[in-house]
Amino acid sequence: MVILTLNCGSSSVKFQLYGWEEKKVLAVGKVERIGLDQPAIVCRGLDRPVYTAKTNAPDHREAIKKIFDILTDSAYGVLYSLEQIDAVGHRVLHGGERIKKSVIVTPEILAQLKELIPLGPVHMPANIMGIEVCRRLLPHAFQAVIPDTAWHQTLEEAAYLYTLPYEWYEKYGIRRYGFHGTSYIYCARRAAVLLGKKPEECNLIICHVGNGASICAVRNGKSEDTSMGFTPLEGIVMGTRAGDMDPAIVTYMQEKLGKSPREMNDILNNESGLLGICGLGGDRRDIQAAIAKGDQRAQLAADMECHRLKKYIGAYRALLGKVDALVFTAGVGEEITPIREGACKGLEDIGICMDYEKNKAARCRNAESCISTEDSPIKIFVIPTNEELVMTEDVHALCEGNYSDSGMHYTFEEPDFIDSARFSAMQQDFKEHPEWKKVLAIPPKAKSDLYGTI
Amino acid sequence: MVILTLNCGSSSVKFQLYGWEEKKVLAVGKVERIGLDQPAIVCRGLDRPVYTAKTNAPDHREAIKKIFDILTDSAYGVLYSLEQIDAVGHRVLHGGERIKKSVIVTPEILAQLKELIPLGPVHMPANIMGIEVCRRLLPHAFQAVIPDTAWHQTLEEAAYLYTLPYEWYEKYGIRRYGFHGTSYIYCARRAAVLLGKKPEECNLIICHVGNGASICAVRNGKSEDTSMGFTPLEGIVMGTRAGDMDPAIVTYMQEKLGKSPREMNDILNNESGLLGICGLGGDRRDIQAAIAKGDQRAQLAADMECHRLKKYIGAYRALLGKVDALVFTAGVGEEITPIREGACKGLEDIGICMDYEKNKAARCRNAESCISTEDSPIKIFVIPTNEELVMTEDVHALCEGNYSDSGMHYTFEEPDFIDSARFSAMQQDFKEHPEWKKVLAIPPKAKSDLYGTI
Repeated sequence: MVILTLNCGSSSVKFQLYGWEEKKVLAVGKVERIGLDQPAIVCRGLDRPVYTAKTNAPDHREAIKKIFDILTDSAYGVLYSLEQIDAVGHRVLHGGERIKKSVIVTPEILAQLKELIPLGPVHMPANIMGIEVCRRLLPHAFQAVIPDTAWHQTLEEAAYLYTLPYEWYEKYGIRRYGFHGTSYIYCARRAAVLLGKKPEECNLIICHVGNGASICAVRNGKSEDTSMGFTPLEGIVMGTRAGDMDPAIVTYMQEKLGKSPREMNDILNNESGLLGICGLGGDRRDIQAAIAKGDQRAQLAADMECHRLKKYIGAYRALLGKVDALVFTAGVGEEITPIREGACKGLEDIGICMDYEKNKAARCRNAESCISTEDSPIKIFVIPTNEELVMTEDVHALCEGNYSDSGMHYTFEEPDFIDSARFSAMQQDFKEHPEWKKVLAIPPKAKSDLYGTI
Repeated sequence: MVILTLNCGSSSVKFQLYGWEEKKVLAVGKVERIGLDQPAIVCRGLDRPVYTAKTNAPDHREAIKKIFDILTDSAYGVLYSLEQIDAVGHRVLHGGERIKKSVIVTPEILAQLKELIPLGPVHMPANIMGIEVCRRLLPHAFQAVIPDTAWHQTLEEAAYLYTLPYEWYEKYGIRRYGFHGTSYIYCARRAAVLLGKKPEECNLIICHVGNGASICAVRNGKSEDTSMGFTPLEGIVMGTRAGDMDPAIVTYMQEKLGKSPREMNDILNNESGLLGICGLGGDRRDIQAAIAKGDQRAQLAADMECHRLKKYIGAYRALLGKVDALVFTAGVGEEITPIREGACKGLEDIGICMDYEKNKAARCRNAESCISTEDSPIKIFVIPTNEELVMTEDVHALCEGNYSDSGMHYTFEEPDFIDSARFSAMQQDFKEHPEWKKVLAIPPKAKSDLYGTI
């Protein structure tokens, strides 16, 4: 079975083509700058040269057509016909209160997604267009949606409601939804493997820190609280989004600047966060480089990021009572050593003891690391996330009729699982940087020879 | 020396008259419903009958005149002339970035306060009117202002800035200020006494929970972070204020409801919080009574309050690294047992171990209690706050020229200090409820016979 996963963002489409039987990524790539000047496409097909080009993509419809063209191209593609695609999984930002898990696309589901556009005006139209294009161009294929909110359906009322007029919840759906669900599923299940426990035995704090960033408290394998809320604007420090703030600032500055609600929302989403503080945006490597050059505003931005991460880690530590592991994932969580260090510094008294040398050595984004001290009551893992694999497996399970939003067993829950897409890169990493291997996190139940061959 | 302290709220004036030499409250009272229908005045003069009456108070000016009338009344008053008032301390909501401590009123200070009106449009005009009325009616008296924000001047940049466009801070003063400063000074110093330590040796988490509510992380006796921000809207659950929320909800609901920024701000300040969730406002006794009758929405409101308190306690626990004591104060913190219990339940793993029986016995608002288990690494205190005493002592010290915003020694820092205004009530409490005395918190350095006489 060949499964395509699509992630339509506001001005991009990311895709991955996966061969289920061979457990291999057949192609991966993206179209960026859709609707802007000079859109670009990149596609890496298995055993094919990398294809990169400027392209013509005024909207997501055209972008997806371009992707299909290159997937079936004789030189760069990996398919001879689009009919080889058996199923498509569409990432959608918002499932609202009705789409509570991954589901097969039906006219009813499409109608419900359209009703949710106001809750995600930037992402939802792109998500929906992706579904509609694929239904027309791949009429033979099975189609499913994987909402980013689904994982957080287990939040209790006291965690998902805001202390706002209750009828805002009833009439307008104002509540905490939470996002990054597929990433949390992956990391929660992988952390359980690394702990040698069942997922339902694990209490975890997972920090998904990228350009967008959120954090999740996991009790017994299920989401109990999360920092993003009604939209992805709330919570920890992000690239360009404001995160937590006094809501009175919104109306105060709106009056000061004479902005409409929509313009204000744009500033809070696109001109705030780290960008607002230091003029540098989501890529924390730029901020780290500026710090190295003595840029004090960049240092402040990084300090603020660590300060707020630490507060959320503490908040969820308190909520959960007992915690097995703290997990860092996504771009910053996987790569930016000083942010992880700053977030964990001084947490020894609440059982989170980072080995700072191990933290520095955990630079392999192709393998999982353990960066806590030997005797830390709470383990600290760095887990490279794999949202596409969760989507792919959900789609496969839906096709096979054995999908479940709670009890499902994913292939990556096997102790011996190694991410096939990353395996050769990991081998290369360890060859070039043997010191990185010292912090490799090995599941206690794994066959050691598997890791021995690295 | 006779010192008057005034606390002018949006529709009320609270006052206290204090005899410095005798260390006694000479009179205490308030005017409520100023500018509304049927304003009411109450005054309790020392050795005088209680005066309560409907009054005519269209604004704060008239309200303060009424207070002066009753203070000099032959039957109810305690003064024969207003000239006996030597000094007045005015509580002001906002000191902004320039009034960083308690200060003597000068024309410059008054001008600065007027510039701060936009940062507290509800409270600041009342605060300022109080100062202007007293300067005219008590021209002989020494006048000082005690800003609620002053205590939080020790916050570092990473804690007081928001991840918003940096020029909003530079041009518009958008930052975290924090409030409830006088209450935090009192509780931080008293907690040090109860711990038998110097204030600068103490790390504390202080929960000031009343109708308005905030929480403060104290490191080495100084404020390090706090939940209220640019205004008192941000943070933990309050009577009618929204507290923390996704800022995107502000603009989303503004569009949905067609509200102006100001109308929106009104809803968030006056129709949200516990009132928004369960229809009952700031008085948590009403909510507890409703819970007892099976009101599920009231239970939800209480659960949300505990949930958010717990998260902030955890966040500040993480920030501080080591914590000596958790302190509850103000109306809810001092009185509502189930909220304290809900906030602390499950925090044993981070060293906060409540003795639930002691918590139930800590019902004396006239004495300090210790409600942690014997072996709890972090003590839990209930401390009846006394903002008026801090104000009075600041005014006295300013008069005497020995005021300091950091190194000052307050009378209530003596191990033997007992709040004179509460002493007889405390004796009565313990006579009627001898079990309350079992949780009395006694400073290790206090002379035991003082407490033995209770």
